[in-house]
Amino acid sequence: MISKVKNAMSTLVGGMMPHGHHQHGSGGNAQNSGPDGLPPRFAYSRPEFLDLTPELLQYSTEHASRPVITLKRDSRLPWRTGYAEVINAGKSMLNEDQASCELLFVRKISGKQRNSTLLDDNGDGTGIPLQFWGVFDGHAGSGAAIMASKLLHRLVRDRLCDIAHLLENPSTAPPICLTKNGSPYQLEVKKGASVEEDPDSPSDPTARFHMEKVVSLESLVIGTIENAFKQMDDLIEKEKASYSISGGCCALAAVHLMEKLYVANAGDSRAIIIRNDEIIPMSNEFTPETERRRLQYLGFLRPELLGNEFTHIEFPRRIQHKELGKKMLFRNHTMAGWAYKTIVEEDLKFPLIYGEGKKARVMATIGVTRGLGDHDLKVYNSNIHIKPFLSCCPEVKVYNLTDYKHGPDDVMVMGTDGLWDVTTDREVADAVTGFLAGCEPNDPTRYTQAAQDLLMRSRGVLKERGWRLPNDRLGSGDDITVFVIPLAGPKAET
Amino acid sequence: MISKVKNAMSTLVGGMMPHGHHQHGSGGNAQNSGPDGLPPRFAYSRPEFLDLTPELLQYSTEHASRPVITLKRDSRLPWRTGYAEVINAGKSMLNEDQASCELLFVRKISGKQRNSTLLDDNGDGTGIPLQFWGVFDGHAGSGAAIMASKLLHRLVRDRLCDIAHLLENPSTAPPICLTKNGSPYQLEVKKGASVEEDPDSPSDPTARFHMEKVVSLESLVIGTIENAFKQMDDLIEKEKASYSISGGCCALAAVHLMEKLYVANAGDSRAIIIRNDEIIPMSNEFTPETERRRLQYLGFLRPELLGNEFTHIEFPRRIQHKELGKKMLFRNHTMAGWAYKTIVEEDLKFPLIYGEGKKARVMATIGVTRGLGDHDLKVYNSNIHIKPFLSCCPEVKVYNLTDYKHGPDDVMVMGTDGLWDVTTDREVADAVTGFLAGCEPNDPTRYTQAAQDLLMRSRGVLKERGWRLPNDRLGSGDDITVFVIPLAGPKAET
Repeated sequence: MISKVKNAMSTLVGGMMPHGHHQHGSGGNAQNSGPDGLPPRFAYSRPEFLDLTPELLQYSTEHASRPVITLKRDSRLPWRTGYAEVINAGKSMLNEDQASCELLFVRKISGKQRNSTLLDDNGDGTGIPLQFWGVFDGHAGSGAAIMASKLLHRLVRDRLCDIAHLLENPSTAPPICLTKNGSPYQLEVKKGASVEEDPDSPSDPTARFHMEKVVSLESLVIGTIENAFKQMDDLIEKEKASYSISGGCCALAAVHLMEKLYVANAGDSRAIIIRNDEIIPMSNEFTPETERRRLQYLGFLRPELLGNEFTHIEFPRRIQHKELGKKMLFRNHTMAGWAYKTIVEEDLKFPLIYGEGKKARVMATIGVTRGLGDHDLKVYNSNIHIKPFLSCCPEVKVYNLTDYKHGPDDVMVMGTDGLWDVTTDREVADAVTGFLAGCEPNDPTRYTQAAQDLLMRSRGVLKERGWRLPNDRLGSGDDITVFVIPLAGPKAET
Repeated sequence: MISKVKNAMSTLVGGMMPHGHHQHGSGGNAQNSGPDGLPPRFAYSRPEFLDLTPELLQYSTEHASRPVITLKRDSRLPWRTGYAEVINAGKSMLNEDQASCELLFVRKISGKQRNSTLLDDNGDGTGIPLQFWGVFDGHAGSGAAIMASKLLHRLVRDRLCDIAHLLENPSTAPPICLTKNGSPYQLEVKKGASVEEDPDSPSDPTARFHMEKVVSLESLVIGTIENAFKQMDDLIEKEKASYSISGGCCALAAVHLMEKLYVANAGDSRAIIIRNDEIIPMSNEFTPETERRRLQYLGFLRPELLGNEFTHIEFPRRIQHKELGKKMLFRNHTMAGWAYKTIVEEDLKFPLIYGEGKKARVMATIGVTRGLGDHDLKVYNSNIHIKPFLSCCPEVKVYNLTDYKHGPDDVMVMGTDGLWDVTTDREVADAVTGFLAGCEPNDPTRYTQAAQDLLMRSRGVLKERGWRLPNDRLGSGDDITVFVIPLAGPKAET
């Protein structure tokens, strides 16, 4: 059974890479086309920093052996970042995970440059350094994940360039209003109209009218990253007019800018910081279960999005026609608990949210509720779109690197759900801490070795009954991608 | 100025209580009527357990002296609960806070009784004991707060009676389906159709179809309380056809049932548990700031609710017409951070959420976003309703009393925002702990004394420049209501 999948795979990978696989990673000019007859936006490849030969690329796709792919021994990522990846056990023909790790620079851009978005990655090497890591867990195809891994960091950088002149004055709160050319705009206050607020009269209506919120630079960076995700999603939609961009992807991105780490998550990947044996969660997962109430609220307010096929109310199981008039447990968007309701005809529709844990689905279709792409995703055999139930908006958490003096064993682990499905945060933390303690602190490969070790713990080894962990539980059959990022940062490199 | 308010008050309180105040607390048969010509549902009064004489009721309304009202020395509340209240410094003529503390019993009700909701508080004293505490912070009138203080506990009890037969078997999970008469209904499984789920094949579609969620009894109680709040809100709306029921109210309710404390909050009141010097928050506040994204999402999905007057986008200040075309900081429902947008005509509308902290308002009208009542509340001089931005759905938190052996100084403090606006959780905890340590453990009045002490710390004392705290900061000018509930529970009474 496994070898059968493998053979199908080899054929496909060959087919995906025209001219005997010699064009991998060439980007944009591959000759093969998608089901809609359009060329792919980017050809299938693995992350550029892996620098895989065509032979290694082929090798990376073997479902039977699931080889762990890491950085070459003599290549380095910024911050000495560790990386490892492995393909799934056969659930999709290619590894639909993607990753990026890029050093970019944020600087003011001129009007002329401004019109060309997506500048080269490094510009001319001047400006505020921006270190970016991304993991992208694709589904229903690799197109969106590959495109996001090639472009999201550039969009984040471009949007930060728009506010570069504000980032250069970190001690000043961003102006509330800017002129068209980006300089601060101050409302004139008429003489005598200025109001000094009396702290003892908090309900002074004049003071209230003149209220101005102070927005921090950190909030501005958060908003900028949030909007870059939205822009990435819009770009995928737009370019689908000219290219084949298959599927969608969960996106987890970490942005290091001016001593702060901004971790933005849309999907079910996860980032945790492990610091002196303490675990600091840097992301929350977005799934039909965690987002049940948002989805139900949307279905309740816009029932036309449910296409007369689904009900926004959740029941603990499907209802049968003969149960009409009986009472069944239910919950809607207003409820955390459950209560009984009398079953009516409407309740016989399929529930918007159905299933538990990894089997939970939105409209019986998708198991994550945030991500990029999926603009064409519809309920099977219907014209019901999964968007906007599926949202591209990330949640951004901030970690201030100057709040703590990080040692070489303090790291952030970013991984796709394949890593976390079978290994808990605590197990990951203990494994990393234990592993790094056994390495030389200045071994440049220690973080990649740690990433490889984590990955192995979730993949397991192939036995007669499939991929198994040491305790004989099932290993993850999913694609797995892991970054291990030392928080001592670029200083650790010297 | 203060005495002027006081004189107006005396007149009004007289007017509110016909026949020389002799009817206070008589409930429902007061002869005076509201602005719509309808009689009030319940006459203005203070909580029944205070058993105030007409003279004391009058005394309780003096804004000049703001007397602290507590339980009479010889009266007892269940669990030796402590209670104290004080009127505002003049912002409304009456104390718009209300409170309830009731022991009820949950038992199966017959079909005949079932038709009459709102049974007497105590029934015949058989069944599962249910201890209820509620604090209700009214606004724009006392009607909704008084009605909720008289009826919410009964609705909670009635809904729990519906599931009494399930509560009697706490070790059995509630059946998913019930027949009309409430007995469990089991779907017949056809022979051979039963599917044993294989843990190794998590994507077996047959298994998925047969999925049944197990719902805990605790979840059922939570859902029942959530729906009782909704029913309370519906009842206010319904009875407004026949009665004058003014304003709305925040509602914070604690329900003790079968060794668990369920704390349900809709509004900006707060409950905390103080246990061995540790603070356990038992509620979250619902305000324009904490609920910004829910409100903006509603305004975005249903723009007609904004009546062409408001924009769902938030800006840090009002925009002036001459700023059209410039760029301003904004955030919408998808954003936690801020970014710049070019100002267009639409952005000149008033923001749905405006102001900061205690001054934040929804549609320039109301500073809380959950509560009961307010069915007629509209934006000033418009036909724009505040509901459904204002929601009646509580958040319920559960505390298991058997998880810890509580001593006499372990308590839950429930208070309206007047308490918490000027005193932090830590200050409240330190004050209670310090105060109780100085009392005899079996002094029956110790919790009321503690409640009084807390209240005084937030009210302060009257000085030349108003009500002041010891540090000379302003005391709360709001109505204040405090329960101090010993967690040792009824056992402490013996």
